[in-house]
Amino acid sequence: MARARTPMSLADIFRAPWDAGDAGDAAFSDRALLSRMLAFEGALARALADADVVPHAAAEAAASLCEHWAQDGGRAVPALAPDALAAAARHAGTLAIPFVKALVEAVAAEDGQAARCIHRGATSQDVIDTALVLEARRVAEALVARLCDAADAAAALATTYRNTPVTGRTLLQAAVPVSFGWKAAGWLAGLHRCIDRIERTVPQACSVQFGGAAGTLASLGDRAQPVAQALARHLELPLPAISWHGLRDGPASLAAEFGLACGVLGKIGGDVALLMQSEVAEAFEPAAEGRGGSSAMPHKRNPVGAMLAREAALRAPGLVATLMSGLPAEHERGLGHWQRDWFTWRDLAGAAASAADAVAEVLAGLRVDTARMRTNIDALQGFPFAEALAAQLADTLGRPAAQARVESLCRDALERGQTLQAAVARAAQAGEPGFETARLAQVFDPTSHLGGANTMTDAVLAQWYARPRAQMRD
Amino acid sequence: MARARTPMSLADIFRAPWDAGDAGDAAFSDRALLSRMLAFEGALARALADADVVPHAAAEAAASLCEHWAQDGGRAVPALAPDALAAAARHAGTLAIPFVKALVEAVAAEDGQAARCIHRGATSQDVIDTALVLEARRVAEALVARLCDAADAAAALATTYRNTPVTGRTLLQAAVPVSFGWKAAGWLAGLHRCIDRIERTVPQACSVQFGGAAGTLASLGDRAQPVAQALARHLELPLPAISWHGLRDGPASLAAEFGLACGVLGKIGGDVALLMQSEVAEAFEPAAEGRGGSSAMPHKRNPVGAMLAREAALRAPGLVATLMSGLPAEHERGLGHWQRDWFTWRDLAGAAASAADAVAEVLAGLRVDTARMRTNIDALQGFPFAEALAAQLADTLGRPAAQARVESLCRDALERGQTLQAAVARAAQAGEPGFETARLAQVFDPTSHLGGANTMTDAVLAQWYARPRAQMRD
Amino acid sequence: MARARTPMSLADIFRAPWDAGDAGDAAFSDRALLSRMLAFEGALARALADADVVPHAAAEAAASLCEHWAQDGGRAVPALAPDALAAAARHAGTLAIPFVKALVEAVAAEDGQAARCIHRGATSQDVIDTALVLEARRVAEALVARLCDAADAAAALATTYRNTPVTGRTLLQAAVPVSFGWKAAGWLAGLHRCIDRIERTVPQACSVQFGGAAGTLASLGDRAQPVAQALARHLELPLPAISWHGLRDGPASLAAEFGLACGVLGKIGGDVALLMQSEVAEAFEPAAEGRGGSSAMPHKRNPVGAMLAREAALRAPGLVATLMSGLPAEHERGLGHWQRDWFTWRDLAGAAASAADAVAEVLAGLRVDTARMRTNIDALQGFPFAEALAAQLADTLGRPAAQARVESLCRDALERGQTLQAAVARAAQAGEPGFETARLAQVFDPTSHLGGANTMTDAVLAQWYARPRAQMRD
Amino acid sequence: MARARTPMSLADIFRAPWDAGDAGDAAFSDRALLSRMLAFEGALARALADADVVPHAAAEAAASLCEHWAQDGGRAVPALAPDALAAAARHAGTLAIPFVKALVEAVAAEDGQAARCIHRGATSQDVIDTALVLEARRVAEALVARLCDAADAAAALATTYRNTPVTGRTLLQAAVPVSFGWKAAGWLAGLHRCIDRIERTVPQACSVQFGGAAGTLASLGDRAQPVAQALARHLELPLPAISWHGLRDGPASLAAEFGLACGVLGKIGGDVALLMQSEVAEAFEPAAEGRGGSSAMPHKRNPVGAMLAREAALRAPGLVATLMSGLPAEHERGLGHWQRDWFTWRDLAGAAASAADAVAEVLAGLRVDTARMRTNIDALQGFPFAEALAAQLADTLGRPAAQARVESLCRDALERGQTLQAAVARAAQAGEPGFETARLAQVFDPTSHLGGANTMTDAVLAQWYARPRAQMRD
Repeated sequence: MARARTPMSLADIFRAPWDAGDAGDAAFSDRALLSRMLAFEGALARALADADVVPHAAAEAAASLCEHWAQDGGRAVPALAPDALAAAARHAGTLAIPFVKALVEAVAAEDGQAARCIHRGATSQDVIDTALVLEARRVAEALVARLCDAADAAAALATTYRNTPVTGRTLLQAAVPVSFGWKAAGWLAGLHRCIDRIERTVPQACSVQFGGAAGTLASLGDRAQPVAQALARHLELPLPAISWHGLRDGPASLAAEFGLACGVLGKIGGDVALLMQSEVAEAFEPAAEGRGGSSAMPHKRNPVGAMLAREAALRAPGLVATLMSGLPAEHERGLGHWQRDWFTWRDLAGAAASAADAVAEVLAGLRVDTARMRTNIDALQGFPFAEALAAQLADTLGRPAAQARVESLCRDALERGQTLQAAVARAAQAGEPGFETARLAQVFDPTSHLGGANTMTDAVLAQWYARPRAQMRD
Repeated sequence: MARARTPMSLADIFRAPWDAGDAGDAAFSDRALLSRMLAFEGALARALADADVVPHAAAEAAASLCEHWAQDGGRAVPALAPDALAAAARHAGTLAIPFVKALVEAVAAEDGQAARCIHRGATSQDVIDTALVLEARRVAEALVARLCDAADAAAALATTYRNTPVTGRTLLQAAVPVSFGWKAAGWLAGLHRCIDRIERTVPQACSVQFGGAAGTLASLGDRAQPVAQALARHLELPLPAISWHGLRDGPASLAAEFGLACGVLGKIGGDVALLMQSEVAEAFEPAAEGRGGSSAMPHKRNPVGAMLAREAALRAPGLVATLMSGLPAEHERGLGHWQRDWFTWRDLAGAAASAADAVAEVLAGLRVDTARMRTNIDALQGFPFAEALAAQLADTLGRPAAQARVESLCRDALERGQTLQAAVARAAQAGEPGFETARLAQVFDPTSHLGGANTMTDAVLAQWYARPRAQMRD
Repeated sequence: MARARTPMSLADIFRAPWDAGDAGDAAFSDRALLSRMLAFEGALARALADADVVPHAAAEAAASLCEHWAQDGGRAVPALAPDALAAAARHAGTLAIPFVKALVEAVAAEDGQAARCIHRGATSQDVIDTALVLEARRVAEALVARLCDAADAAAALATTYRNTPVTGRTLLQAAVPVSFGWKAAGWLAGLHRCIDRIERTVPQACSVQFGGAAGTLASLGDRAQPVAQALARHLELPLPAISWHGLRDGPASLAAEFGLACGVLGKIGGDVALLMQSEVAEAFEPAAEGRGGSSAMPHKRNPVGAMLAREAALRAPGLVATLMSGLPAEHERGLGHWQRDWFTWRDLAGAAASAADAVAEVLAGLRVDTARMRTNIDALQGFPFAEALAAQLADTLGRPAAQARVESLCRDALERGQTLQAAVARAAQAGEPGFETARLAQVFDPTSHLGGANTMTDAVLAQWYARPRAQMRD
Repeated sequence: MARARTPMSLADIFRAPWDAGDAGDAAFSDRALLSRMLAFEGALARALADADVVPHAAAEAAASLCEHWAQDGGRAVPALAPDALAAAARHAGTLAIPFVKALVEAVAAEDGQAARCIHRGATSQDVIDTALVLEARRVAEALVARLCDAADAAAALATTYRNTPVTGRTLLQAAVPVSFGWKAAGWLAGLHRCIDRIERTVPQACSVQFGGAAGTLASLGDRAQPVAQALARHLELPLPAISWHGLRDGPASLAAEFGLACGVLGKIGGDVALLMQSEVAEAFEPAAEGRGGSSAMPHKRNPVGAMLAREAALRAPGLVATLMSGLPAEHERGLGHWQRDWFTWRDLAGAAASAADAVAEVLAGLRVDTARMRTNIDALQGFPFAEALAAQLADTLGRPAAQARVESLCRDALERGQTLQAAVARAAQAGEPGFETARLAQVFDPTSHLGGANTMTDAVLAQWYARPRAQMRD
């Protein structure tokens, strides 16, 4: 992730700057695709030699060239420029045909024997689909890393604000107070689930596709299995029991996880944006030069990160549905189902990266106004505690009478424009039974209404900190 | 459409080469966006002068610069390069902020007074949303033109093959014969409906968005309406009664039409691919060098155009759903709903253009094998005519007896591995009543089973040829 | 719409109580489907007689029975009970087969000759698809009526609150004030557009489907067209040039309009819910016994109507995408594309009706707290007017100096925790040039910042009141 | 699964007959929902007693009543009839309010003390969301069982037809032959992956939701955790670290798996339907009385099961997208996001069950015509073997010369309308070098072109038979 990414397009507004691979190309960019396709062809050349299908020296030469060119997304080979390939690919109906042609010519220009090792036994879908899973795996790893950043930030918020009361809000209406730490723990739990599911899904979702013309590796005869095994070994990908190009639920299952992550990130972003509202003003995205603030509009701080997260959450479901709708491909290779998957993944991976990046930044720098949280609770005039008051009074009055009395107190307070506390104080002053002040002292203290919040917060934190920190692939 | 398009990306595999605007940039490309934004700013400068908000000379200078730069997608202004803008736009949460900053500086470098006219009274969403509808309108016009090409080709097929019997197929099973012309007329009717709906939708969907900070043009005071009217006039767009940035059903309604067009084109592509199956072989995409055929695999002709059409039809519904899901924006500007619309339109417009182009080419060059159509009908051994036979016999035998007799004839034919015709001939020979050959002569003639097919075909053709050929905008 | 609807299911939580047809059955319910299928068969019997395909007396008997049974959703015929049909339909793969079988038997029990007129020349898809458009047309009419109720209520709000300032909010942050009437006019404009588009779409979307086995009306021979014309006349539906069962973009285009309406309604509901937030409290859904309020939680009023509208807006895009994804059907009848459309329409029509009902009720009874709107503006401490202040000062100081001075005033006010008005007053007291009070009097008056708001509001209202009030079908 | 299901609706056409729970109610039906809600309330009463919040005797009475009523979906309590609840639930905006009211009254009629134990500490979303996961878990188990049936049938096909050549088809064009067993192994592998993923997802996706008013179990104070633990124990569901009602990615992840399963089943159904085409005729769904066949149309066998599977695959992505789009809920309870989830699950679970049932039945009874498979290969005139021929000749002629010679042979054969075999025979007769018959004997034998097919088939079967047969929940 260290290299700065090569800019690509204005659509990068909705992509994270860190989602760049080894060559600094954005995830699922054109150059990333070419790089992965070259990596496949290089590994295949080696595998063919391992299985004695082609001579070792020629294969070594072919593989070295492919691997060398792959490092820079094929930029060293003019004929592999996206501009050059796109029109031919549209004409042929697949990118692989002009790609292989250009590659064979480029290799042949260096070494005629080496050129004969290129793409032997493989078909278009083998190179494109394996490129897809290679890139998907890398992006999944990078995404998990950034989700972990966001989760760490949420964990810090959960710890810091474990006992800070904030209005709980259901259907956008104030309900009983919760703690802000518990709220952050809810975000953390969602992020942790996403991380777990992505890590669990990658090994099954990202396996070699290698089947040749119809999927059976027909042209390799009895060399089929040895070549396939060697190919998987060189690519460090699992070899599935059978080629999966006709039934693409594996990659689609990882896409679904990306979509779920967008949803979780969008929820967090949405919550932050709602807290940032001028009339709520309880938490704010970190300020940054030229971002969301304005010296002439000092009351305004636009929720830029939250917006990016929500944007991703709105866009992802349609993209996941698109990938899922391509599963019922016809026979041994579908009509139009698989060819565009790379480009749909480009959008989906970009959305997930954008949202993860935005939320990690927002949570890490979140400015929390605990005083305003308390002010907002107080502005509710004690009404959120009416139920707790009734429960307390029930010991003395019995439940029905207690509820009736609380309702009349509420009406009374509303009519006078006073707080429920004031109405209770009047009743206590009048010596009403059950209103002895000592007993009711805690009723209006927001921190005494957290129920199981701290237990939950602690459990979420414990699970997070118990997570093995080892890397996904190791 | 005359200029060749500037290539952009491998994703152009799924975009049509003709979908380029004045500067040769692909529809909804980065450069197209910048071009449209510059056009908006130029027209706004003129409108501000028309309404006496800014001096005429300064406005004229500003507008000239914007319009000049717009012609080449802003390439003349280095600071407007997508690479330069993308990172700043992500940071700011909107493209418009760095764009306006760069534009003001570029204009100021030429003319300080002119720079003061730029973007006056407008907000980010005004320039981006108006750019969106300007581009959407252009693409809609280009799409309609290509849909008309496809429709003309379908009309020619409907005319040529009006009386050519082909197996009707329901649930992928052979049913009674239809005519291939009638089949093409069904395609034509669908294309015609799409064309009509798109043309009907454009004027309402593509209107100026101009509202300023919150949509009320507050900063223009009593000059609001005159500026808005002049802006609309300069852009040749309708001025709506109220700014629509918070409620984007207009553009979304056009997006839905693009999605429907993809569906219709995908149906046509799918039918062609099914007809091209090795075992059916009734119609073929036009052969082209390097496309779908292979000298070493002469039995294979890949349905490349059909594949592109189906790909678009699979992808479009998710994109339409994405645009539709952004309608419920919050208050006067939603969080993340509108900002990505341009990029979703990029995919949707590309899909529609790709499919329209592919189908227009496929239908215009369709190779039809009428002999094979007849052979395939014959291979059904007369069974599709069993119902017609029963209807014919019913005159003599009554309906129940006729049906029973036909069923026994069918069983008989199946058991002997013969045709139904042979079984009928045996019955006729045996002198069975109702089997007088003269009366049954037509039963096994596929052309005598077309029912209302020709009436329908003619009606579809008449509607198509009655369509006014004037251009959409005139 | 007068009859109370027969309850059906808990899913009716998300359906409007008025969406009932003649027999009181919910839109797209099982009984509604059976009713429409009976109506088709009745009209077909009459049409067959009109075209001399069957005897008039038998047809009249068949049609009378079908029409009589249709009135009550087929409840009079035990064999037509959904329970009885569902299992057989699943087995057969289509509802029409057991339906026609049961209907023929039921008619035969009354009149043997009449039974012979049933379903002649038609196929499963004819009866089910025509039932679909009959129901879709009725629901569209009912939906338009309820959208008009909502629009009328929005128009009343736009009129009443034309000059009531309310905080404009972009990205959920306070921006310059707008008027609440202008905000309601924005809702009205969206509703009006939906109404127009639905009315424009219905005639094209809802036409007879009648094609017989493969779509050519083969078995009717030269009687095909006369029967089709008579059928359309009896059903009061347009007869299209060609049967559309293989290319269903017509109904799908109406579905898209339903989806767009859900989006617009969801936007309105979302705005209301945001205004109802405890911390904003500017407008409220009408109170109703047992709805959203609680005597013990008097601070809480749940946005029930808003929630229903948003629920529909979230659900509709996926349903529209589902219907759109079914367009590429195979040949003359697709595999699985059309059969489930009725049930997807059930959900989509229910969503639209639910949202329209909720929004009509919410807007008609909306309680607006104009004082709180003003309080919320005041709480922004004058900062939203900083830009206007700078514009005013620019006349005296020039633009750059004016902006710099306003920024310093803002900083000053923020540091002191005072309003911008107070900072300006201090400057005026100090005799700063440009701060003469008379000139700045209007700067902090929210009503002087409405720009083109009233012009827009009036234009929207004028368009609405100019709408012809005639009914859609006349 | 033993009980026959209570019929519900014509929408059952697209639901499997076996997806019935203990009371025979269809998955996610109204009665299933009420049954699950009653189960929740019963378990909660017990849990409250376990944690000493309510008296044991009262809780026992309450729990017994709830559990008793749950067995029959609440039919014993008239006030719990869906008809009675639906209108009140729409008015209240949630089903839980009228449900709890009716339940409390029903319990109170039996035992006043018991009534006080009902719903204590819980909120609407607790009972509805826990009901959701209880039902989702049961349906997942039933779905897995039926997917296993389908997989077993696919395994049998893979075994039986391991060496049966069938045309491989890519882009619907004939490619090199594969074995039909390998094709079935591909289906099996997809089903196996779905089964594994569903089983892996259920434990995480289906956990208790219990949070009270805002999610913190505020009203239970320090009894929160003990009650929650006991509740989970009684329901045999995992207790998550924190309530998840505001962040519903857990159930959504299971929904995604249902969607993927629909996609895999749709692919299998689609393949079968394509094989059943009149012109292909290589495999057929099992014949059944009244299903897909007709004595008068003996050439026609409709792919009913395949159609059901494809219908589900077309519908599922939109439903998954709908559930996924609901993730970004506002704060502690979203507006409209969660309430409709039950009903969307009804459709999704129904789709998956329908497809699994159809495919299990289709594969178990699949009639395979191996002779026709061979005939169809032969009809390709040897051209699919051109590449293998060139490879064989390359040993003698070198690669370029071999390819050129094969191309000329192909042209020759095409021109004469003969097979490639015939052209080769002529060359052999003419004594061309490399054409010695012994060496070319295998080239045209389809079984000698299976490459790695058998290795793959065997690996898939081995994995399937190695699957532990234990039940998911144990």
